[in-house]
Amino acid sequence: MSGIRLFVGADLGAGATVALDAGQAHYVRNVMRAGVGDPVVLFNGRDGEWTAALTGLGKQAAEAQVARQTRPQAPEPDVWLAFAPLKRGAVDSLVEKTTELGVARLLPVLTRRTNAARVNLDRLRAHAVEAAEQCERLSVPDMADPVRLDALTADWPPNRRLVVCDERGDAPPIAAALGNLPPGPTAVLVGPEGGFEGAELDSLDQLPFVTRVGLGPRVLRADTAALAALAIIQALAGDGDRRPE
Amino acid sequence: MSGIRLFVGADLGAGATVALDAGQAHYVRNVMRAGVGDPVVLFNGRDGEWTAALTGLGKQAAEAQVARQTRPQAPEPDVWLAFAPLKRGAVDSLVEKTTELGVARLLPVLTRRTNAARVNLDRLRAHAVEAAEQCERLSVPDMADPVRLDALTADWPPNRRLVVCDERGDAPPIAAALGNLPPGPTAVLVGPEGGFEGAELDSLDQLPFVTRVGLGPRVLRADTAALAALAIIQALAGDGDRRPE
Repeated sequence: MSGIRLFVGADLGAGATVALDAGQAHYVRNVMRAGVGDPVVLFNGRDGEWTAALTGLGKQAAEAQVARQTRPQAPEPDVWLAFAPLKRGAVDSLVEKTTELGVARLLPVLTRRTNAARVNLDRLRAHAVEAAEQCERLSVPDMADPVRLDALTADWPPNRRLVVCDERGDAPPIAAALGNLPPGPTAVLVGPEGGFEGAELDSLDQLPFVTRVGLGPRVLRADTAALAALAIIQALAGDGDRRPE
Repeated sequence: MSGIRLFVGADLGAGATVALDAGQAHYVRNVMRAGVGDPVVLFNGRDGEWTAALTGLGKQAAEAQVARQTRPQAPEPDVWLAFAPLKRGAVDSLVEKTTELGVARLLPVLTRRTNAARVNLDRLRAHAVEAAEQCERLSVPDMADPVRLDALTADWPPNRRLVVCDERGDAPPIAAALGNLPPGPTAVLVGPEGGFEGAELDSLDQLPFVTRVGLGPRVLRADTAALAALAIIQALAGDGDRRPE
């Protein structure tokens, strides 16, 4: 379980030689203390998971030769998370843990009370890759460019249900609300640290693809709300009934 | 929503004068920039929630006079969390977020692969208090002294169901497993970063009060597993159907 598992961009197939980047070379060599000939596991989000062996290992790059497939690529739950960027520690944790919980796409969204004007997408992507490698996912969640909330909803795919975490107290409990939804693509929307403005929630409530939900009597931090909603959705309507391989 | 909300030890009742400690005095004065006469909200886990006004504010201490009750003490879900201590950032986050999710009691438990020999209970308690103040709970979770896993189960209250997060792949999915349980006191048990040893899980599986559950196909970090399990339990069997006041 403590082996080396890496996400790569290249196609994977028996006999292919795959280049590892400088960060992966550093990790393999200096963190994991591996050498030429040692086994690694590779995935790219398209071709399943493969064993490979390190065939070259320099300071700036490394390469591995692919051997055999250990798991085929398989469908994953189609759940997105739209979130207002948070402070660095909170947003890093949100990306890491929602990746573990199987989020398919992460969408930073700028609301009226969003404080973090600058979103470091490269850092967030790196956290998502690392979490995907660790949790044995066969994919890395997509990371969308930040958009304003009104632009997000204006371009929203109408067949994707948007589950809005609403802490005003009049939204139905999430478990009951999910029970009333037909199966299909889903997304969760959580607000910034200070919450949505009332007018934002009122506007969301007018949209035909929105389902407002409550997460119980306590006031959850934004990242806690995202994790809780995603965990509940996976358990009730996602792949919570599947088992590790 | 951004007012001052403090957990105190003293009894609360109309007209009572309550002493605040040095940390609270610092927070009120230097972080929240409040002064004598400003309002605060107090709770103690027994007498509900009360408004009060600051009547004294020094560098090392402060006091407030209690005015009127805003919420009576109310029953809360009886869900415990037993967890193997993790690295500092992860365990702090676990305590903070499970407090938000309404955990009633936190029990550090030492398993065979637990790395953190030393548990700083004072720091964890401080995180629990701060999270309870922020999330508008009327209580702070109890923090038990660390015990070994075998001691924990030897003294276990037999009427409390122990839901063990088991990532070996043969445990039933958590939603299905919860649906088969009668209502009653519950606890979640999550292992350390490296997971339980197989022999530990085998022993747990022999105990009449244990229900092993799976959390889906991905390998969750220990703190993610704790949050996910607690969020799902609250949504399906706890107070997820209650609303903020």
